[in-house]
Amino acid sequence: MIIGFILIEGEAIMAYKTAPGMSRKVQKLFHLIMHLVALLAGIVGIYAVFKFHHELEIPDMYTLHSWLGMSTISLFGLQWFLAFFSFWWPRARKPTRARLAPWHISFGMIIFLMAILTAETGLVEKFIFLGLRRSQEALLVNFTGLLILLFGISVGLTVLLP
Amino acid sequence: MIIGFILIEGEAIMAYKTAPGMSRKVQKLFHLIMHLVALLAGIVGIYAVFKFHHELEIPDMYTLHSWLGMSTISLFGLQWFLAFFSFWWPRARKPTRARLAPWHISFGMIIFLMAILTAETGLVEKFIFLGLRRSQEALLVNFTGLLILLFGISVGLTVLLP
Repeated sequence: MIIGFILIEGEAIMAYKTAPGMSRKVQKLFHLIMHLVALLAGIVGIYAVFKFHHELEIPDMYTLHSWLGMSTISLFGLQWFLAFFSFWWPRARKPTRARLAPWHISFGMIIFLMAILTAETGLVEKFIFLGLRRSQEALLVNFTGLLILLFGISVGLTVLLP
Repeated sequence: MIIGFILIEGEAIMAYKTAPGMSRKVQKLFHLIMHLVALLAGIVGIYAVFKFHHELEIPDMYTLHSWLGMSTISLFGLQWFLAFFSFWWPRARKPTRARLAPWHISFGMIIFLMAILTAETGLVEKFIFLGLRRSQEALLVNFTGLLILLFGISVGLTVLLP
């Protein structure tokens, strides 16, 4: 679930840089709708975890993975609503928007970083719960982790480099 | 070990922004020496892990945590030597240095991010190996994880914001 979240979020972040053919307004709309899809995916994911824990009678929210995940989705939701009202509708005045933009970008990158942290800690957690050592499955989990990291780095570079 | 590494590395990264009283040359020297200390700490840490695994006959390098840690320290060493030769001695010409700088900064932030990933996955791994649930120790591990994340965010903002 969190992996799908990261992929959608990454695409949404890169919308401004990787889709230069679109007009500014379409890029913005794409950016906000993709982030809304990611937000909904995240909420469904967290609902599924609580349901799973409830059915198997596992305690909730005791690992660092769960703390990171919950903080990520909360900050993500907050960021989405703040940005929607400031940049889309009813929309702040131009100088205010310009002042907000670098904070929106920095805050967005931090949340994206937190999503990657959540995914990686989740993979390691699952790895050890399953008692994996050296097997096909262990390699599959670890390479998934490396791919998420590489995807995160690509998205980061798209934003950072001119 | 990795936590000490992150703290030293974070201070080293922030040297340019948080120590404005120093001359450029002293800042640079501080930056490179702190990173050398972090590199040595990282190497001692990895040596200690292999020694510990050897004594308890645990297999090596099978978790995502170990893969991330080994990649981090390797890229870190590479980055240090490349930067030493380009920026300190024998030192490239000025336009070359200016062209290299943004890559050095981006690459450095990626390595710092990877160090945080390594620390967080390591904490989660230890948490589950110890079979922690809801206890003082569990909270200690998780809050350590949150503190590392907050430190990482502070360092990131110091670099990103003007």
